Amino acid sequence: MIVILTQREFERMRIEEDCIGKLELEDNVLYGIHSKRAVSNFPISAERVHTLIIESLLQIKKAASQANYAAGTLSAVKARAINEACYELLQGKNAEAFIVPAIQGGAGTSSNMSVNEVIAHLANQRTHKQLIHPNDDVNQAQSTNDTFPTAGKMAMLKLLPGLLSALTDMIEVMLKKAFEFSNTLKVARTQLQDAVPTTLGRSFHAYYALFKRDLKRIEHAAQGLNYVNLGGTAIGTGINASELYQQKIVPLLNRETDLQLQLAPDLIDATQNCDVFVEFSGALKSLAVDLSKTSNDLRMLASGPRAGFNEISLPKKQAGSSIMPGKINPVIPEVVNQVAFEVMGNDVTVTLAAEAGQLELNAFEPIIFKRLLESEEHLTGAIKTLTSNCLNGLKANEEKCAADIENSIAAATVLTPYLGYEKTTRLVKEAIAKNISVKEILKANKLLSQCKIKELFSKEKLIHQHSSEKIGNLV
Amino acid sequence: MIVILTQREFERMRIEEDCIGKLELEDNVLYGIHSKRAVSNFPISAERVHTLIIESLLQIKKAASQANYAAGTLSAVKARAINEACYELLQGKNAEAFIVPAIQGGAGTSSNMSVNEVIAHLANQRTHKQLIHPNDDVNQAQSTNDTFPTAGKMAMLKLLPGLLSALTDMIEVMLKKAFEFSNTLKVARTQLQDAVPTTLGRSFHAYYALFKRDLKRIEHAAQGLNYVNLGGTAIGTGINASELYQQKIVPLLNRETDLQLQLAPDLIDATQNCDVFVEFSGALKSLAVDLSKTSNDLRMLASGPRAGFNEISLPKKQAGSSIMPGKINPVIPEVVNQVAFEVMGNDVTVTLAAEAGQLELNAFEPIIFKRLLESEEHLTGAIKTLTSNCLNGLKANEEKCAADIENSIAAATVLTPYLGYEKTTRLVKEAIAKNISVKEILKANKLLSQCKIKELFSKEKLIHQHSSEKIGNLV
Amino acid sequence: MIVILTQREFERMRIEEDCIGKLELEDNVLYGIHSKRAVSNFPISAERVHTLIIESLLQIKKAASQANYAAGTLSAVKARAINEACYELLQGKNAEAFIVPAIQGGAGTSSNMSVNEVIAHLANQRTHKQLIHPNDDVNQAQSTNDTFPTAGKMAMLKLLPGLLSALTDMIEVMLKKAFEFSNTLKVARTQLQDAVPTTLGRSFHAYYALFKRDLKRIEHAAQGLNYVNLGGTAIGTGINASELYQQKIVPLLNRETDLQLQLAPDLIDATQNCDVFVEFSGALKSLAVDLSKTSNDLRMLASGPRAGFNEISLPKKQAGSSIMPGKINPVIPEVVNQVAFEVMGNDVTVTLAAEAGQLELNAFEPIIFKRLLESEEHLTGAIKTLTSNCLNGLKANEEKCAADIENSIAAATVLTPYLGYEKTTRLVKEAIAKNISVKEILKANKLLSQCKIKELFSKEKLIHQHSSEKIGNLV
Amino acid sequence: MIVILTQREFERMRIEEDCIGKLELEDNVLYGIHSKRAVSNFPISAERVHTLIIESLLQIKKAASQANYAAGTLSAVKARAINEACYELLQGKNAEAFIVPAIQGGAGTSSNMSVNEVIAHLANQRTHKQLIHPNDDVNQAQSTNDTFPTAGKMAMLKLLPGLLSALTDMIEVMLKKAFEFSNTLKVARTQLQDAVPTTLGRSFHAYYALFKRDLKRIEHAAQGLNYVNLGGTAIGTGINASELYQQKIVPLLNRETDLQLQLAPDLIDATQNCDVFVEFSGALKSLAVDLSKTSNDLRMLASGPRAGFNEISLPKKQAGSSIMPGKINPVIPEVVNQVAFEVMGNDVTVTLAAEAGQLELNAFEPIIFKRLLESEEHLTGAIKTLTSNCLNGLKANEEKCAADIENSIAAATVLTPYLGYEKTTRLVKEAIAKNISVKEILKANKLLSQCKIKELFSKEKLIHQHSSEKIGNLV
Repeated sequence: MIVILTQREFERMRIEEDCIGKLELEDNVLYGIHSKRAVSNFPISAERVHTLIIESLLQIKKAASQANYAAGTLSAVKARAINEACYELLQGKNAEAFIVPAIQGGAGTSSNMSVNEVIAHLANQRTHKQLIHPNDDVNQAQSTNDTFPTAGKMAMLKLLPGLLSALTDMIEVMLKKAFEFSNTLKVARTQLQDAVPTTLGRSFHAYYALFKRDLKRIEHAAQGLNYVNLGGTAIGTGINASELYQQKIVPLLNRETDLQLQLAPDLIDATQNCDVFVEFSGALKSLAVDLSKTSNDLRMLASGPRAGFNEISLPKKQAGSSIMPGKINPVIPEVVNQVAFEVMGNDVTVTLAAEAGQLELNAFEPIIFKRLLESEEHLTGAIKTLTSNCLNGLKANEEKCAADIENSIAAATVLTPYLGYEKTTRLVKEAIAKNISVKEILKANKLLSQCKIKELFSKEKLIHQHSSEKIGNLV
Repeated sequence: MIVILTQREFERMRIEEDCIGKLELEDNVLYGIHSKRAVSNFPISAERVHTLIIESLLQIKKAASQANYAAGTLSAVKARAINEACYELLQGKNAEAFIVPAIQGGAGTSSNMSVNEVIAHLANQRTHKQLIHPNDDVNQAQSTNDTFPTAGKMAMLKLLPGLLSALTDMIEVMLKKAFEFSNTLKVARTQLQDAVPTTLGRSFHAYYALFKRDLKRIEHAAQGLNYVNLGGTAIGTGINASELYQQKIVPLLNRETDLQLQLAPDLIDATQNCDVFVEFSGALKSLAVDLSKTSNDLRMLASGPRAGFNEISLPKKQAGSSIMPGKINPVIPEVVNQVAFEVMGNDVTVTLAAEAGQLELNAFEPIIFKRLLESEEHLTGAIKTLTSNCLNGLKANEEKCAADIENSIAAATVLTPYLGYEKTTRLVKEAIAKNISVKEILKANKLLSQCKIKELFSKEKLIHQHSSEKIGNLV
Repeated sequence: MIVILTQREFERMRIEEDCIGKLELEDNVLYGIHSKRAVSNFPISAERVHTLIIESLLQIKKAASQANYAAGTLSAVKARAINEACYELLQGKNAEAFIVPAIQGGAGTSSNMSVNEVIAHLANQRTHKQLIHPNDDVNQAQSTNDTFPTAGKMAMLKLLPGLLSALTDMIEVMLKKAFEFSNTLKVARTQLQDAVPTTLGRSFHAYYALFKRDLKRIEHAAQGLNYVNLGGTAIGTGINASELYQQKIVPLLNRETDLQLQLAPDLIDATQNCDVFVEFSGALKSLAVDLSKTSNDLRMLASGPRAGFNEISLPKKQAGSSIMPGKINPVIPEVVNQVAFEVMGNDVTVTLAAEAGQLELNAFEPIIFKRLLESEEHLTGAIKTLTSNCLNGLKANEEKCAADIENSIAAATVLTPYLGYEKTTRLVKEAIAKNISVKEILKANKLLSQCKIKELFSKEKLIHQHSSEKIGNLV
Repeated sequence: MIVILTQREFERMRIEEDCIGKLELEDNVLYGIHSKRAVSNFPISAERVHTLIIESLLQIKKAASQANYAAGTLSAVKARAINEACYELLQGKNAEAFIVPAIQGGAGTSSNMSVNEVIAHLANQRTHKQLIHPNDDVNQAQSTNDTFPTAGKMAMLKLLPGLLSALTDMIEVMLKKAFEFSNTLKVARTQLQDAVPTTLGRSFHAYYALFKRDLKRIEHAAQGLNYVNLGGTAIGTGINASELYQQKIVPLLNRETDLQLQLAPDLIDATQNCDVFVEFSGALKSLAVDLSKTSNDLRMLASGPRAGFNEISLPKKQAGSSIMPGKINPVIPEVVNQVAFEVMGNDVTVTLAAEAGQLELNAFEPIIFKRLLESEEHLTGAIKTLTSNCLNGLKANEEKCAADIENSIAAATVLTPYLGYEKTTRLVKEAIAKNISVKEILKANKLLSQCKIKELFSKEKLIHQHSSEKIGNLV
């Protein structure tokens, strides 16, 4: 409720008033009383409302002015003035006018009010009159409770292509590596103990398969973000919004943004419930879990160089130690782990905030949006650096892999269809005790022919492994 | 590796041996050395492996014996003996033989081994010979690493219909209540402050819409549980499993169980990754969040009876206090809240355990399964009691709702299209200061005609609320 | 409010009535209407209220009857009857009478009411008259809101010595191992990459130091559990409790239990706030984190036997695989990890339930108590099995440790005070490229005297490592 | 390892080289190759390393140069150059030189290396020669693994007084309010249902008591942050640090900072374990839980103004709605709730990162520090705004409180010592059915004398509530 009571030119201050009282503002700022109150009420962090939320609110205001004009509840002059102010702000001009902190009480009221008043002030500056009222005109047929959650969803949807594209690139590299390493026979480990042979290619194919699911999971979970409650106004009943506005606002907004938003079927529900954010956060958390598991694997397989697994080499990205010369660390997977831990913690925050919604509104959307946008951005950055700075240049240490296979005793598993579980167990124990390989034991014991041994332990056979042969005596 | 070395008849003890050493067992027990070692290794909790996991393992063993017979790697005599033992155990006989604790190290090895040895022992008892070997025969073409996760998924899938059916029943009651209360006009609250009018019916329709999404979300998330890695054996390469077995095992198991399991496309991936459990847990957590929010609403709306919201009355289910006579508490929503807190905590446990998987296996599936089965069961119970003991008999307190509406000032929102945001704000402040209703202020101020006032504040209009009228002067 | 209306002898049923209505009960059961309602209201899980909570409630009731008698508000006859019934029940007789489910709505009312009615019923049976009323007599001067949280705290305190003793035993074994391995020189790893030399003894000393802190942390956090709100009755104001009762109840209870309970300084606060449970859970979570990190280390150091770190050998506790003969897995640390994941999830549940308290009461104490008692018990079991089944018999693989040291290049760090960071870096790169040891490079390059090299890389020097020598030229 | 190979004056670029290779840097920047690599390796977020961590690292470097000089391992000239560069940077000059992102892989190596190279570069600029080497001189006797965790702890300790002071101020206001409202009799609620009378003063005294515990809890948990591992270098063995340095570094640093740091008793332990961070985070989480519960209470008690509890009025801080004129929302408690949700999520992140430490190091300290510093700062801001913008001006709505008491039936609890639980229950049911007060029922029923009724329900009696009178007949 901007009322410019007096223009104290000499002091370059103006006074605005709202239902709380009056407040002085510097004359040249575009923001108004509501923005300034927010800054003083919420001194939590220096971080401001995410630029994509501001951008989305501006797009909503622009589309709303068109819808209200079409509905005949906003004059052409006003609609044009609002449109032009929005257009100008959407170009990125006057970005410093949006001073409201990201962490704010009030269910986003400060965010919405600040956009209303910046637009109104700019429009009035441009038209040199008190034409536009922030609430009656800019906010017409709207409420914080429909514009703010819609803007939050739009911001998440805008970050999505970047995340999905980074993920897709990573998946392709995983597949490329699966082919590259398809003949690199190596020891598998279950429970960190040497297990039957596998190939490094198979490991990367498994990552490929895993992250393809994550891609689908995120795409699926994000669908819920398309359903918006615009036109529902205060609580979803649509009070003060005309029917025509309600019909036009979403299509107009889609035209403005290239998004595919849809009106939610139950606006009361869509205004108060945050389950779509919990679902979306859950999908991001799933991705985080998988990235963390994969990073753990990469770090373990690259452990060494002398006293570790040393099966792969990660690209060297920076000196690893200020004291240990020549040490190189797996810094890229490490940063991915940390982002994963963040995202898992953010999921708890989102869960808590969603659960805390009461009756017709969830007042805690600001923190939900802040954490979810952070999760999307950090995951995108993490995946990009993992792909370009680690996976792309990752090499197999063929000699080490081959030596481990030669030395391993877990390949003895192939013998059980021929010798039975118990006899094979005794062979394995003997091999361990004598510190020799299973092949050597077998040769000594003459349990199988040389030819059979050769066949069973051939690289070809170990890579494929089906016991395709019908076993004669049915042990 | 059961080797009955000696039958010390007088002591009624038998001795078994495995790769660790020998162990005495009471002669009359069906379990063997591996089960007994598990009991002594994992003294964490008295809870045993979930009966549905045992049942599922038995079904897998039964189907496997058929598949191995078909593949020609298991004799008819053996296959029949295994089948019959499984059949008998699946009838629920000898359930006390499965003594392995639910919380166990070893990635499920103890669970799988115990089922193998109970079947073998029973089959040998029935056939009066040492016919069946637990590993070579019962476990043929299998590994803990493919049977145990498959059994875990099967158990979850078996609990699903009960959960979905309870949820469907609740959704129907929500819809019934939405109709029942469709004319109960009441004050909405945003941020717990009085807001524009709504109806109690709308509130219940919002719950209806919310839980319909939960239903779909869980159904969707559960799809991933259908993909099993049977035939993958130790790490997914299928070592020691014949091709024929691999083709037949899943169809045979489906015939045995009426489930729609499918072979996972990448068995290496399916053996090591737990993302489907994280996804499923996430969907259950979403439901828990929504149940908790709804329970919070019910408890708040039922607060009172004198000094609270008192808009609804919940069925009285038990005396509320050992000291305050006649006090009745919302015990049903309260127990639902607690189950929700459990499920949200379980989601963190599942997340942690999934993230901890390393290389070719996740060794922490026992705790994942325990927590997920618990979440499913507790949610099912919670939803059932919420529906039958609370929602079904829930009543609206019509008088209180109507009195609040009459008294409320938030309905003044309908005036802004006529009077503007600022003038309306002043009216509201005046009404609060004078402690009278907005209608009274309006009448005194003569800002609108009596007729218009009546129309704007009619129950009909308040229930519908669209400002469908084209507003003349375009404030 | 037990009113036995009629004794239908032939049917062996009795009817009780409360403020909800009448209910039939089998005549021979000790529990009453409130217990039976709880069973039907809370069909969540088969688990009943923890026996230690029941025991503690019985002790409270016993002490309360003494306090009320002393205060002159309960007759000697009644006090004696209650005392005797409690005594009998505390012997463990009739344990099956406590049928109330652990997960219950109502802030523990069902738990408290059930204990009241079982005591009253038993006392009346023993005295052959309707002498004792469950509320007026057994519950006199009490409320669920002071007895139930007190019983919860008592149960946690009763489990504490077992946990602390298990932890103390483990700490001692850690110290024993620190001495045992004090000369086992081995490669340290930072970020999983080979780092400067250390000893296995140092690693165990670090565990020792870590868990000593955990011990203190838990002892400290548990202190808050000693402050109880007995005498505060419904909300902490002490309504219906006499002053004498309030003075005597805690000392009498301490005499009964050997605990050191104290009256909380602000009973209103103590009745509604659950921060002591959050604090206690946080301390248990800290322990869980440390157990999990340690278990991860043990599993990694024991990885192999051929293609892993293989620096230590854990005692063999069970066959590791149903398919891979002779494979042994680190099942004990694995089960510890899983308990740790549980406890971390439980901490989230406790946090959520504590945060959900409203105004004068937290209605969610049943789930807080269930989860905390579970965390204490499972941690105790996990630590015991870790100590006795893993740490005690853990061996160092001296040869592997020594070979890794000989082969390592990270020991080159000792050269930087002599050669500088850059020159040493070049040496290390050369050693890696030529696949030889740093000592060999040094000998070839003649940068240091043979004698100096020998000194720098002596076992003695590597174990101690201070660059105690004043470096001449101040590089 | 800065080697200025060539000074290409015309291009204003310099080239540095490390063990990875060469990199061009703009000639005028103070940072070097390691900082620039970090920026390109970790493109996660725009946020840089916290200024308090940078400041603390500078203080460590300054103290270290003094300690090394004292130990005779650093020349006077070098020590003076380092000291002067540190002094200049600690004045806040050249803050833009610290470009390393807060979220970084490498366990803090980039942070430490960047401080080393900025100091070295500045010192060399000032002295006009290549005097100081970032590793050999600035980092002498140090490692990232001892300086970075120390700097993290120092940063946390530096934020602590602000947090504790904000908390202390809030506690004082709580106590002030407890006195202010000590005669405001009001209805208590347990489980949101009307319960026995209390006073608003008691409610605030309970908050006072609660947050006093939080204050102590945080002070206690923060003690662990004082133990640092300086002198432990790479893994805690102290390799390359002189004994004299080890003795002097902590006292010198304390002199520099006015902190009370101490050398940890086991440096290996102190280098690898993050339990003190988990403990500290747990204490902050406890505070968050309590702030959230309190904020929930404030919001509920202030609900209304017409159709809610309306027992208190919070200061009006901003317009509450863009659409509902005159609506005022509890925005300050709402922002506190959101910070609490953040802190609880951060606790999960800290827990996960601490658990992920491996062997001799936890590589995930950067995210632990980022989240913990955020928790401290946000909690401080939240408490400050809660105190100054909400609690200070909070008013009791005396009339509403009194009317609720008059109207309430829960006060009937005072009758049970006279009438018994059952008779009182019937009275309460009658009062509810007839919609009258308990006093009216009592008068009608003549169960107690007028005088007794007046006494029992006197404000004085209701405020105090002990049933101090000896009850005659012992019901």
